[in-house]
Amino acid sequence: MQSFSEIDNLSPGGGSLMIAWQLKGKRVLLVGGGEVASTRVEHLLGADAHITILCPERGLHLTTKRYIDAYPSRIVYFDRRFTGPSELHKIDLVLTAIDSPATSREIVDLCRKAKIPVNAADIPELCDFYFGAHIRDGPLQIMISSNGNGPRVSAIIKDKVRASLGGHEGLAISKLGLLRSRLKERVPEVGGSVGRKRMRWMTKICNEWLLKDFTFLDDAMIQKLLDDGWEQNRTPTFEEVSGKPSTSPSEDTASQPERASKSPVFGSQYLISIANFAAGAAVMAAFMYARRR
Amino acid sequence: MQSFSEIDNLSPGGGSLMIAWQLKGKRVLLVGGGEVASTRVEHLLGADAHITILCPERGLHLTTKRYIDAYPSRIVYFDRRFTGPSELHKIDLVLTAIDSPATSREIVDLCRKAKIPVNAADIPELCDFYFGAHIRDGPLQIMISSNGNGPRVSAIIKDKVRASLGGHEGLAISKLGLLRSRLKERVPEVGGSVGRKRMRWMTKICNEWLLKDFTFLDDAMIQKLLDDGWEQNRTPTFEEVSGKPSTSPSEDTASQPERASKSPVFGSQYLISIANFAAGAAVMAAFMYARRR
Repeated sequence: MQSFSEIDNLSPGGGSLMIAWQLKGKRVLLVGGGEVASTRVEHLLGADAHITILCPERGLHLTTKRYIDAYPSRIVYFDRRFTGPSELHKIDLVLTAIDSPATSREIVDLCRKAKIPVNAADIPELCDFYFGAHIRDGPLQIMISSNGNGPRVSAIIKDKVRASLGGHEGLAISKLGLLRSRLKERVPEVGGSVGRKRMRWMTKICNEWLLKDFTFLDDAMIQKLLDDGWEQNRTPTFEEVSGKPSTSPSEDTASQPERASKSPVFGSQYLISIANFAAGAAVMAAFMYARRR
Repeated sequence: MQSFSEIDNLSPGGGSLMIAWQLKGKRVLLVGGGEVASTRVEHLLGADAHITILCPERGLHLTTKRYIDAYPSRIVYFDRRFTGPSELHKIDLVLTAIDSPATSREIVDLCRKAKIPVNAADIPELCDFYFGAHIRDGPLQIMISSNGNGPRVSAIIKDKVRASLGGHEGLAISKLGLLRSRLKERVPEVGGSVGRKRMRWMTKICNEWLLKDFTFLDDAMIQKLLDDGWEQNRTPTFEEVSGKPSTSPSEDTASQPERASKSPVFGSQYLISIANFAAGAAVMAAFMYARRR
């Protein structure tokens, strides 16, 4: 239960509502084709959007050009500037990445009238939403926002966050998603007590296995996990399901601190210790042997 | 320059557009007041939204109730259910967190007609956007999304990400924001060559100082940094500006690898090495001494 002061601490204000916008099958208008626009294209393709780019060809960045060539079914390109309100017909989201703040302002005004969410690069006061530093690993996405305090500091924190990840998280989440959908095939009820039981069982597996262990899941293991686990209302260990020992826990210690003491850093330090002990012994032996002669 | 295959790798699809939605001065309708709704209120207050909550009083979670009592100027509460399209008048964003999927679907349909972005808790196919696991530290916000593969795995990764942070990042970003605004007071030009020079200088300071060092910035240090740094077109060291040595780099090594070699882990390993060398030497000395007698 939260106290009033905790509630106050939880609500510092001054932030953004961090959300994962769904663009599958949606139409996005991107006004501009330069370097900033090219990073927008990357994010939009990653979210399965249909993209219309307006930009005179001489203003196209090489990367934007390559995206246009590589995704002809996803990107419609027009070699011209924004012409007026008709450009917004059936558009779900608008991004501007152009040099003229005046033109951006005009486009934003039209979007407001048409109730279309809009971002104008480099003009925060015109934006319905901001972008941030972004990490993508398969189904895993992480966004870091400094709420307008500079992209460089977001990038520094992004590097730190990325370094804390083991690189296996995306695959592990994909396999977890596969396990979840196999379980749903077996017990397809939506909501209700079965839905809750399914969620509890998935949560339990998530808590008891190391994240990296999920990367090894294959069809046979999923079958065994559901037969021996779900059907018996228990959560078998990774060892039991795979016949192999669990992976090194080093990558998962942040979330599963009880296993931290087995970290391989300890292992390598231990080897260094033995090597140094041996070196010390050898030097002393040589010294004493020399003295004896 | 990116190759085609890199572009393909950069655009795996199946993801979301991760964005920081701006709600300052915007009106949000929250239908429902239970436990899930209470977490929505937390996020909405953090983004400075004006909130209207519709929920029969018996359905109010204690935390929701406390938010309503604690923020009377920010939250308008009505002890009733959603009644119809008139509820959406002048609303910028809608969130439902109720038990009835049918009612959620009705509300979502009305939002689509009115072109209001909407999230229906637990019904992903109805959502314009999803929420994820969220870390907030002052102006720093980090969102982790597993793109529908379960909240538990996002929470596990959130714990890992949080453990990688030093706890000083939010304050450091606040101080960086202060430095930036003082610099803008000194050279208020927007855009152009001065704007670019200002951005380059801020980026250089970000790259050369450890993030934690910024937490120590006070008025006098900011003054010195701008006088001896910006005005001289150079970036003074933290030591020069503060008169104190820079903080331990351990917290920042992920982002500043060039300083990683000074990491205290190296220091402690070095001591362990000496100790083991000494131990080896001592044991061998004792052994040979014993043999000699």
